[in-house]
Amino acid sequence: MIFLTRKETFSAAHKLYREDWTQSKNEEVFGKCANPNWHGHNYELYVTVKGEPDPATSFVMNLSTLSDIIKENAVNRLDHMNINIDVDFMKGKIATTENLIVAIWQQIEPPIRAKKCILHCIRIQETEKNYLEYFGP
Amino acid sequence: MIFLTRKETFSAAHKLYREDWTQSKNEEVFGKCANPNWHGHNYELYVTVKGEPDPATSFVMNLSTLSDIIKENAVNRLDHMNINIDVDFMKGKIATTENLIVAIWQQIEPPIRAKKCILHCIRIQETEKNYLEYFGP
Amino acid sequence: MIFLTRKETFSAAHKLYREDWTQSKNEEVFGKCANPNWHGHNYELYVTVKGEPDPATSFVMNLSTLSDIIKENAVNRLDHMNINIDVDFMKGKIATTENLIVAIWQQIEPPIRAKKCILHCIRIQETEKNYLEYFGP
Amino acid sequence: MIFLTRKETFSAAHKLYREDWTQSKNEEVFGKCANPNWHGHNYELYVTVKGEPDPATSFVMNLSTLSDIIKENAVNRLDHMNINIDVDFMKGKIATTENLIVAIWQQIEPPIRAKKCILHCIRIQETEKNYLEYFGP
Amino acid sequence: MIFLTRKETFSAAHKLYREDWTQSKNEEVFGKCANPNWHGHNYELYVTVKGEPDPATSFVMNLSTLSDIIKENAVNRLDHMNINIDVDFMKGKIATTENLIVAIWQQIEPPIRAKKCILHCIRIQETEKNYLEYFGP
Amino acid sequence: MIFLTRKETFSAAHKLYREDWTQSKNEEVFGKCANPNWHGHNYELYVTVKGEPDPATSFVMNLSTLSDIIKENAVNRLDHMNINIDVDFMKGKIATTENLIVAIWQQIEPPIRAKKCILHCIRIQETEKNYLEYFGP
Repeated sequence: MIFLTRKETFSAAHKLYREDWTQSKNEEVFGKCANPNWHGHNYELYVTVKGEPDPATSFVMNLSTLSDIIKENAVNRLDHMNINIDVDFMKGKIATTENLIVAIWQQIEPPIRAKKCILHCIRIQETEKNYLEYFGP
Repeated sequence: MIFLTRKETFSAAHKLYREDWTQSKNEEVFGKCANPNWHGHNYELYVTVKGEPDPATSFVMNLSTLSDIIKENAVNRLDHMNINIDVDFMKGKIATTENLIVAIWQQIEPPIRAKKCILHCIRIQETEKNYLEYFGP
Repeated sequence: MIFLTRKETFSAAHKLYREDWTQSKNEEVFGKCANPNWHGHNYELYVTVKGEPDPATSFVMNLSTLSDIIKENAVNRLDHMNINIDVDFMKGKIATTENLIVAIWQQIEPPIRAKKCILHCIRIQETEKNYLEYFGP
Repeated sequence: MIFLTRKETFSAAHKLYREDWTQSKNEEVFGKCANPNWHGHNYELYVTVKGEPDPATSFVMNLSTLSDIIKENAVNRLDHMNINIDVDFMKGKIATTENLIVAIWQQIEPPIRAKKCILHCIRIQETEKNYLEYFGP
Repeated sequence: MIFLTRKETFSAAHKLYREDWTQSKNEEVFGKCANPNWHGHNYELYVTVKGEPDPATSFVMNLSTLSDIIKENAVNRLDHMNINIDVDFMKGKIATTENLIVAIWQQIEPPIRAKKCILHCIRIQETEKNYLEYFGP
Repeated sequence: MIFLTRKETFSAAHKLYREDWTQSKNEEVFGKCANPNWHGHNYELYVTVKGEPDPATSFVMNLSTLSDIIKENAVNRLDHMNINIDVDFMKGKIATTENLIVAIWQQIEPPIRAKKCILHCIRIQETEKNYLEYFGP
């Protein structure tokens, strides 16, 4: 079993808030991330798949196939977007990286599985000091 | 003469557009950066001052003084903000990094000069692939 | 289950030696790290906690709470210090990163648990070529 | 149990192709990596060993011993080499990173075991966007 | 005057040798870089242009225009290539980074000038320990 | 004229203080850097030389010659040392990076000149947030 990781990046705006909370309650909980006028980040997205190398190619997965899946199903729908407004798979959710990482898993796991590979882990680096990892449900 | 550089960071939202242009004209010129719902970045701000070391301390400038000037006059007014809406010194300007770098120079040059130091250069890294440098008017 | 990692940094001096060994024995085992006049590093400290997101906020843990715990219990007691002399939780121990990582676990695990979170891993990067990871006793 | 990782680097040429395939078949499968005139990379090699710290030194493993094993058994045989032509332990294999990571495991695992340590993981970063991990057979 | 830098990357094979020298003379001068079977690198290419911001857009230069010029005239002709064999603008030259940086200047300076911009500097990072800069003839 | 930069690293201990000042005066001016028990850093040292490429090799300077000069005259005398105590060329000076960068210039400029090259710039990165540059007297 070998683990293959591909990094892609996107830049997006968001804010952390709940519509059913007042602005002051949102600021109390989410701090400066609750700025109603939005802020943003350069996100780094690392996707790890695992598998036995294909006997014909010795590839776990073709990197351009993996990159295409990540771009079509996640990065192109997030890059230069507002996560709260523009991203259909984040509708109705707080725009935390926790919710984002689970939603990205749901988008990219089926097409990776369709290629006979196994999605192992997603990592999102939001700033140089913080990152999240998710290994699936 | 020795050159001292301090790095600080901020995360902000912005969009590139001119109010006197249509949305389609803005998108033609500014591409996906014209998304009306904003996007954002982790900005890295490098400030370089120059001078002869102080004979008493051998410092060009005390680093905590320099860091305080950058934070009070620039970073704290930009971090987790919307550059188009929230930042008084960017009002009425297109929110390009070119305009931002000149505006930050105008904010931090006087307090650096007041400390008998010389601002030499500002560098802003917007993404890992792009940065701007400005050496003053 | 989602894994959240926070990076903090500190700069410190240390040397590797055992008081019950001669200097030449220390140098034979620890090489240039046994220099009696000390040397030092910029340490990068990565702390990973894990948990289910809080239904109210979708946070695994509030990042500023996690950062405060790491600073109060570890970074502020190590930064610009001598690990052999100044750090109470390293007293009587060889100042290796192995001993440091276990000692930091003992300092920060109780306050993280008190916040209903689970400490999963500590990583210390001593130089760009070496790092250690510890997943607890 | 503590995990210790050492990073070493090497620069090498390779191409991806099977001798029993035509050039056009190789290009269809391996894309631009099948260029018959070779291309190359700066590879980053991370080797992770695990163990209980030695009671006498509190080291999991002496870093210079680990570095020497990696250099003698892998890096010195790969650095400034052609992976397809010059590297005996890659003879007859497609020069993918998947095959390389397994072959490096076979080279460095026995000498690490001879030092009473356990090889846990090898990671090879081929470009800033791709890396592989292998935890052994 | 503002300076704008764009980073692009390419991976390539090369060797350092002169055809009018023996292999042993080449190895004496160029060391392991003279391996007749080639080696390779991930090259980072930084291109800096300078100018007054355009009054209409406040751009020094449109980043996608700059990126396209670099890719069409340099990166696409170097990526996954053998610098000694495959790259027409390096024919007959020793494949040092010194010769490469001058040749890339000659390729990208005219199209940048055609866009009314000024090429200021090219930087090539060959490994994490070495880089070259060239400011033109 | 082409500019060639080589990066080397060293880890060292130091403190900032003047012997003719009281400890409280030292702490007032130098803050936590005045800790009498020392602290330390991983220093990154970048040395830039400039020149016309040699017609025979097209090298500005042979990289291994440059690396040897930096190691013999600076890095080997600083690595795993105490800058205040162990380094002869820093004796009697405050151990600021300003004094260090001028002293390193004095050590490495003569041997670089002896090789018919011109030392252009030294850069020392003390932490990821601070660096100094010096272009000579």
